[in-house]
Amino acid sequence: MMNSLRGNVLYGQSGGPTAVINASAFGLIREALKHHDLIPEIYAMKYGIKGALNGDLICINDQDDADLVKLPSTPGAAFGSVRYKLKDFAVDDTDFCHLLAVLIQYNIRFFFLNGGNDSMDTCDKIDRYLKQKGYRCQVIGIPKTIDNDLPVTDHSPGYGSAAKYIANTMMEIVCDTISYPKSKVAIVEIMGRHTGWLTASSHIATHNGSGPDLIYLPEISFDFEQFLADVKRIYTEKNRCVIAVSEGVSDCEGHFLGLSSRARDDFGHAMLGGVAHTLADLVSAKLGYETRPMELGLVQRCASHLQSRVDLKEAMLVGKVALRRALAGDSGVMICIKREQNHPYKSSYFTHPFADIANGETKIPRTMINASGNGLNDSFLEYVLPLVQGEVKPKYKDGVVGFCHIK
Amino acid sequence: MMNSLRGNVLYGQSGGPTAVINASAFGLIREALKHHDLIPEIYAMKYGIKGALNGDLICINDQDDADLVKLPSTPGAAFGSVRYKLKDFAVDDTDFCHLLAVLIQYNIRFFFLNGGNDSMDTCDKIDRYLKQKGYRCQVIGIPKTIDNDLPVTDHSPGYGSAAKYIANTMMEIVCDTISYPKSKVAIVEIMGRHTGWLTASSHIATHNGSGPDLIYLPEISFDFEQFLADVKRIYTEKNRCVIAVSEGVSDCEGHFLGLSSRARDDFGHAMLGGVAHTLADLVSAKLGYETRPMELGLVQRCASHLQSRVDLKEAMLVGKVALRRALAGDSGVMICIKREQNHPYKSSYFTHPFADIANGETKIPRTMINASGNGLNDSFLEYVLPLVQGEVKPKYKDGVVGFCHIK
Repeated sequence: MMNSLRGNVLYGQSGGPTAVINASAFGLIREALKHHDLIPEIYAMKYGIKGALNGDLICINDQDDADLVKLPSTPGAAFGSVRYKLKDFAVDDTDFCHLLAVLIQYNIRFFFLNGGNDSMDTCDKIDRYLKQKGYRCQVIGIPKTIDNDLPVTDHSPGYGSAAKYIANTMMEIVCDTISYPKSKVAIVEIMGRHTGWLTASSHIATHNGSGPDLIYLPEISFDFEQFLADVKRIYTEKNRCVIAVSEGVSDCEGHFLGLSSRARDDFGHAMLGGVAHTLADLVSAKLGYETRPMELGLVQRCASHLQSRVDLKEAMLVGKVALRRALAGDSGVMICIKREQNHPYKSSYFTHPFADIANGETKIPRTMINASGNGLNDSFLEYVLPLVQGEVKPKYKDGVVGFCHIK
Repeated sequence: MMNSLRGNVLYGQSGGPTAVINASAFGLIREALKHHDLIPEIYAMKYGIKGALNGDLICINDQDDADLVKLPSTPGAAFGSVRYKLKDFAVDDTDFCHLLAVLIQYNIRFFFLNGGNDSMDTCDKIDRYLKQKGYRCQVIGIPKTIDNDLPVTDHSPGYGSAAKYIANTMMEIVCDTISYPKSKVAIVEIMGRHTGWLTASSHIATHNGSGPDLIYLPEISFDFEQFLADVKRIYTEKNRCVIAVSEGVSDCEGHFLGLSSRARDDFGHAMLGGVAHTLADLVSAKLGYETRPMELGLVQRCASHLQSRVDLKEAMLVGKVALRRALAGDSGVMICIKREQNHPYKSSYFTHPFADIANGETKIPRTMINASGNGLNDSFLEYVLPLVQGEVKPKYKDGVVGFCHIK
């Protein structure tokens, strides 16, 4: 039964970008354009929720089609993003009043936020506030995170492409590192504050013969003695040792190894970094080996030149499904992915209330990690391999991928 | 007139790998296999010239064809590399005596080293020594360097792919950086000790609408006041500033900005790094802006998942041409590339004596750099664009590129 609601769409991006976040925007926009009778105008927030609060909206209907079709291969947040946490409206409803005024002004009846855990918290608050105020508007969350830590959904769009980039890059780094007879101990720092999904994806490289020898995840409390023993054993045996380490590993007391003085981001999360250098100093001091610490850096979350085809397709679909669910009358829910089967891989979509998802976090189950806690096992491979399958051939001009530039 | 010499081939890799060095190996091997009557056996040095000195050779004829065909998409130095400088044989001929014994033992009559400036110095010494000793062996250099600093040749295989990776990655980093309303000053450190060819390639991203605002090269003496004024101007105007800086920039007295305490590599070159952090600290202290320093790192020279098709083809061809020139009786020369025309791009190959190339260095001409010295101009674009053209679709398995594993 179709909802009789008619009005405009407002879509926003939130938090850190992924290689496919704009593919979700594209999936949603393309579907919305098919329902012009119900949706006269499609707006995007300029710089995420801040744009919605300030009434700073981008009219999608004014954009060139030639630009919009480039969205799926465009990295970054094409419409702009922000890290901004809404207060509890029972305590301070200033932001919510501003938002409601904008929604009324633009007759927004379908509201979408494309983000991770924090964004679903934002969605939850907005949904509850609007219901309380009696303003009819379907609020739907579209999952997006390279970290893959959103609960309920089997996995999140953005993860597969980041995992594919990390796996390929680790293979290349290992091939490069073993080019020399006695190589340095290479320590590669990979993103992931509290969960090791990204770091774990380097195991795909190991499984294919050119990956890290040791993988350290935030899920396993870091044991310095065991680490040094691991490195010494591998280096003695192979004259090489390549280590993948998550930026979020912490010791047995829960202290981050890479906690820097850079304080906190705008959501109040500790800013991490420098684990690779910390461990390199340790290896150098305790074992006397030469080291090469490095960080994969920002490219992990924006390498749109190496998207996973499966991830790209699912990213587009969650956008499309979000629009359809909104039209069908759903609100207060995030689109989730269900893994139907692995061989061949098939997935389907369902919705789940924000409350269980907001601020939640899914860690790698212990059953996917090897007994020593310094690597992954076949159970993880079974989980991750379908998500990194397939390549995408974006359009190149002048040797570089053509990107969408929103007006 | 064909040379009547008959004997075996010895091929070695030297210095830092590139994304296409193994494509040159492949081009040479495939051509050598066609001349089985003249070349009974093909050997590769295990870990470069060190393998040749120790008689540690890999027999190519024993390798699986299924592995060899993967060479062109395999990063790193598939046969192993080394940084090792031969002494002057008039002073100490120990290494040369060992080498000659190995050449005699394996009846090596065609000797190839695939490397950069230092490797051509090694080739030159070996060629002169063998001639002095009256041992007939054709010594040919095969160019390879991401740095693109080899003299005489228009450009070097390896550069085009590194430039393509850097240009695409810079576009992605810029898209990511401008996702936020007020972005940090991003400072991206790119490889290149004495020449800025790699850093300059980020101008392709700028030319395509998502590149660095400022580019600093070793060719231009670094002016701190001008730098701060540039950053302030851009940031005030755009609320963003993305900077590409070569690891080898130096001040007006010639001191490297990024000289670290990591001393020297095995060729005696200063090990650089940390320019991005040095400049970030400066921007933060003098202008009070938030910064994001980063290094593109090792992946610049091994991103075989994003090879330039033109570069890959030329890398294979220099290997093939090297073998042919050796059979034709050439020795004491490196294969060079001549740019015949740009539209459409066409190149040809010629040889040039080592003496002019060994230890030489080609910098970016001042005419390719903008008047302010903080960016490139159309003359550089005309030079670089043909070299980054075309994509390669390597074979993927499990979401990662399939690499060659030499036995």
